[in-house]
Amino acid sequence: MVVKRLADLGERAAIRRIAEILTKGTNSKGIGDDCATIDLGKEYLLVTTDMMYQQTHIPAQMTPYQIGWFLVAINLSDIAAKGGIPLGLVLSFGLPKKISELFFKELIKGADACAVAFGTTIVGGDTKETQEITLCGTAFGTVKKDLFMSRTGAHPGDVVAVTGTLGKAGAGYYALKYRDSEKKLFKAFLEPVPKLKEGQLLAKQRSVTSSMDISDGLSASLYQLQEINNVGFEIKKNALPLASELCFFIDKNHGIDPYSIALHFGGDYELLVTMSVEAVEKAQKSLKTRGVNLTVIGTVTKKKNIVLLNGKNKRILENKGYEHFKKHNF
Amino acid sequence: MVVKRLADLGERAAIRRIAEILTKGTNSKGIGDDCATIDLGKEYLLVTTDMMYQQTHIPAQMTPYQIGWFLVAINLSDIAAKGGIPLGLVLSFGLPKKISELFFKELIKGADACAVAFGTTIVGGDTKETQEITLCGTAFGTVKKDLFMSRTGAHPGDVVAVTGTLGKAGAGYYALKYRDSEKKLFKAFLEPVPKLKEGQLLAKQRSVTSSMDISDGLSASLYQLQEINNVGFEIKKNALPLASELCFFIDKNHGIDPYSIALHFGGDYELLVTMSVEAVEKAQKSLKTRGVNLTVIGTVTKKKNIVLLNGKNKRILENKGYEHFKKHNF
Repeated sequence: MVVKRLADLGERAAIRRIAEILTKGTNSKGIGDDCATIDLGKEYLLVTTDMMYQQTHIPAQMTPYQIGWFLVAINLSDIAAKGGIPLGLVLSFGLPKKISELFFKELIKGADACAVAFGTTIVGGDTKETQEITLCGTAFGTVKKDLFMSRTGAHPGDVVAVTGTLGKAGAGYYALKYRDSEKKLFKAFLEPVPKLKEGQLLAKQRSVTSSMDISDGLSASLYQLQEINNVGFEIKKNALPLASELCFFIDKNHGIDPYSIALHFGGDYELLVTMSVEAVEKAQKSLKTRGVNLTVIGTVTKKKNIVLLNGKNKRILENKGYEHFKKHNF
Repeated sequence: MVVKRLADLGERAAIRRIAEILTKGTNSKGIGDDCATIDLGKEYLLVTTDMMYQQTHIPAQMTPYQIGWFLVAINLSDIAAKGGIPLGLVLSFGLPKKISELFFKELIKGADACAVAFGTTIVGGDTKETQEITLCGTAFGTVKKDLFMSRTGAHPGDVVAVTGTLGKAGAGYYALKYRDSEKKLFKAFLEPVPKLKEGQLLAKQRSVTSSMDISDGLSASLYQLQEINNVGFEIKKNALPLASELCFFIDKNHGIDPYSIALHFGGDYELLVTMSVEAVEKAQKSLKTRGVNLTVIGTVTKKKNIVLLNGKNKRILENKGYEHFKKHNF
């Protein structure tokens, strides 16, 4: 008898197994979305959880303060993607005995600082002794039902847009890798900013048809959105809002393609949305007055593939995300 | 310079450090209670999180189904202790690659079964690859503000009471240890029952002055309640509602004192409450009609120690909980 291991099963199949087994709630939905939603009457309670494991999810260069910040930021990013307002977080710290008190205090300080920076607090948690640092954060928030932005709802003809710029985190990663001294580059990689204001502003437009964060990278996120909505995308390479930080690599000639970083690297924690063509200009103007750039990067198509347009050239967009960023939420 | 490690600091001190660093929310409280509470207007949102780590928190005899059940049960027990109604759970699974698909499916089935058995569902989660099984559950629920049972509020003169019986889990542990075949004994240890009905019935009495679950063991829980309320307790040994399962050990003469198990072992997930003397009889009758036993085991005293009365003998109750059950929530 062949005993299947998780390693053979693959993560997508594992999540399908979970979805098959779990009893569906009458007041909840959200398996496969950034957050679960629970019906609270006029609002949804949004809940999301993310685990970080030292060996696979924590870059060696991260300070304990940044680890704490990161844990909170990645959870708040899921609340942001649904247009939510955070209510609080609980954090579980699995820590080895040998961890110093200073490390521990900095970890808590970083987590607290990120929560407070985005208008919320850490309300509780758990500590356990483990052999490797294993951290688990759960964020919760609320969103008015009519403002909730689901992952499903993209229609052929809609535009595809992203907030902010692409490739900041990738630029930071390579700056670290090449031991560059540009500290502000590292920061985008190690201390990501959850786009809560952006999500709330987009939700108020009431014209977003689907939304998710792009923590896994733009291409991986597009493939997730494509599958769940049973549509396709045409993405214009020249329209991608490359982060200015990427110029650094063009100058230094490390042989890295900035478009590849922008498309595949991940860690930018921007929001990827689809919305009706008619609504996009108004949304862009409205967000601009609040300091938020929303860039149209393509369109939703009936044809169920993802095409990258480069002038007259067309090719199928590769689906690759960097594994250390990949989320396997269910 | 002496670098303090978490191991030197101790868990209570670690939790004090966390509480000192964290920014307090204006709409939340609960550090040091079973659940955090968030103000939702007429209700509190209750949130609690618990982490289980293979090497220290998962007995080798636990089946994957039981591990899943346990993860959900320990979180729901915290909702129960506050009189709450569960809304849902999110679970994070940190699992090694070598785990079989069968193990994984049984884990999910056990978690789902426990949630459904207590009227709720698992609404989302996260999966990550780790080296040791590391699981994190977060439960949330609601409670009407006037029904919320805090850990603080015990007054000298109040009675101390527990739901159900004491020592079931300990009996199961020793039955496993001595390789006894009494499967029903194991179940109380490996598949604990969160006392949600009990908590909700107690809350409706509106006479409970403080409440917590006794997952850490009765003595450890009494010491936590004593410290937080700045009171003392007199506990009557003969009043302790020993689980019938403990008789097994008296008969078999393993040299184990059943009272010691009932007082210190933990894992029973019953509720420990204080309430006014006047209200207790009514509460007992009311709970009895719903099949719940509430046993008065002592009184709250002004003197800030915990005394165990055995007929005419008085001694200070030892503060010992079994480490594998100890919770270090904040």
